[in-house]
Amino acid sequence: MEQHMHRIEIVTRGRGLVAITDQVCDWVKRREIGTGLLTIWCRHTSASLLVQENASPDVRADLETFLARLVPDGGAGRYRHAEEGPDDMPAHIRAALTQTQLSIPIAEGLPVLGTWQGIYLWEHRMQPHRRELVLHLLGERT
Amino acid sequence: MEQHMHRIEIVTRGRGLVAITDQVCDWVKRREIGTGLLTIWCRHTSASLLVQENASPDVRADLETFLARLVPDGGAGRYRHAEEGPDDMPAHIRAALTQTQLSIPIAEGLPVLGTWQGIYLWEHRMQPHRRELVLHLLGERT
Amino acid sequence: MEQHMHRIEIVTRGRGLVAITDQVCDWVKRREIGTGLLTIWCRHTSASLLVQENASPDVRADLETFLARLVPDGGAGRYRHAEEGPDDMPAHIRAALTQTQLSIPIAEGLPVLGTWQGIYLWEHRMQPHRRELVLHLLGERT
Repeated sequence: MEQHMHRIEIVTRGRGLVAITDQVCDWVKRREIGTGLLTIWCRHTSASLLVQENASPDVRADLETFLARLVPDGGAGRYRHAEEGPDDMPAHIRAALTQTQLSIPIAEGLPVLGTWQGIYLWEHRMQPHRRELVLHLLGERT
Repeated sequence: MEQHMHRIEIVTRGRGLVAITDQVCDWVKRREIGTGLLTIWCRHTSASLLVQENASPDVRADLETFLARLVPDGGAGRYRHAEEGPDDMPAHIRAALTQTQLSIPIAEGLPVLGTWQGIYLWEHRMQPHRRELVLHLLGERT
Repeated sequence: MEQHMHRIEIVTRGRGLVAITDQVCDWVKRREIGTGLLTIWCRHTSASLLVQENASPDVRADLETFLARLVPDGGAGRYRHAEEGPDDMPAHIRAALTQTQLSIPIAEGLPVLGTWQGIYLWEHRMQPHRRELVLHLLGERT
């Protein structure tokens, strides 16, 4: 059994989804682990991870619209935590309702994603940020 | 340390919860892994996993009612992604707010579920579907 | 590769967040696992796990306020499951929308938490409870 660790930095362009499937799968593939378990950890509390439909941009737009309505931005005393801007507290709530971590089984050298599944980093702040993910891979060579 | 992988197919009857605790625990038990980690991965973006109260059907009915109100079905231009039916986009949102993956420690050959915890596949589409789960088990024999 | 298991009991003071970062990290540190994977499992369906900002108490207050509004307490026939009190069904819903499990990579003997990340047990019932968490650690000594 082997372990591999890797840190990747994602530069976001403000609120929205950033596809990371290719970057993650490429790293896994090069480790040549036939069977194992990949864990992705997001080291932030105002960005999170999402597994979602990789085909239609409309799905991602609707997800963004839904979450923005569910968790309204701050201002006018809506949140107690307001000193970091009207988008900071909603970013924490959005992160709490989605995932900070994903663990995906590896078979034949790759994550067992379904045909339509993509992995995304969800930036919840309005401004661009540098986000750090830790990848941990555990498994055996084929 | 050993690894085991298994794929199971769940046939759903449309929107609602399908108990998978017994099927998952039976497979784990037969692997005879004393201590380890089980990961369940749902290979879909319109169905998800849930750990919930296994006793009262009312709890599951209330969960369904709550989520249906929180994420209304489509129609009348509510969602941009509408071509796959009024229940497809809400299914993606419902999946985003729940779990695609669960990892459960194994002790004495079984997942360490609490007394009242059951594992469910949550079908979010209105029509019956065939859903595929991947089980990954890592651990040592007693 | 080694495995370690541990059960910890958290006594809560009713609805709200209980910081468990120090307790979890101390246990991990003493196992002297350089690289590995830590899994935390919450054995309840009316309490859950949360990774959130560890600095501002206002963030935690706003999270609590948001979730209490999103998932109103029972009474007046709001929920079918009412026999365990007006806070039991909302507790199940709140748990369904947050996490029952977290898996965190371990590097240099500690979970790779970001600077601002803390781990919390979220008690969703109004009364104090005893809550049991299972910690599973897998990895190699440095």
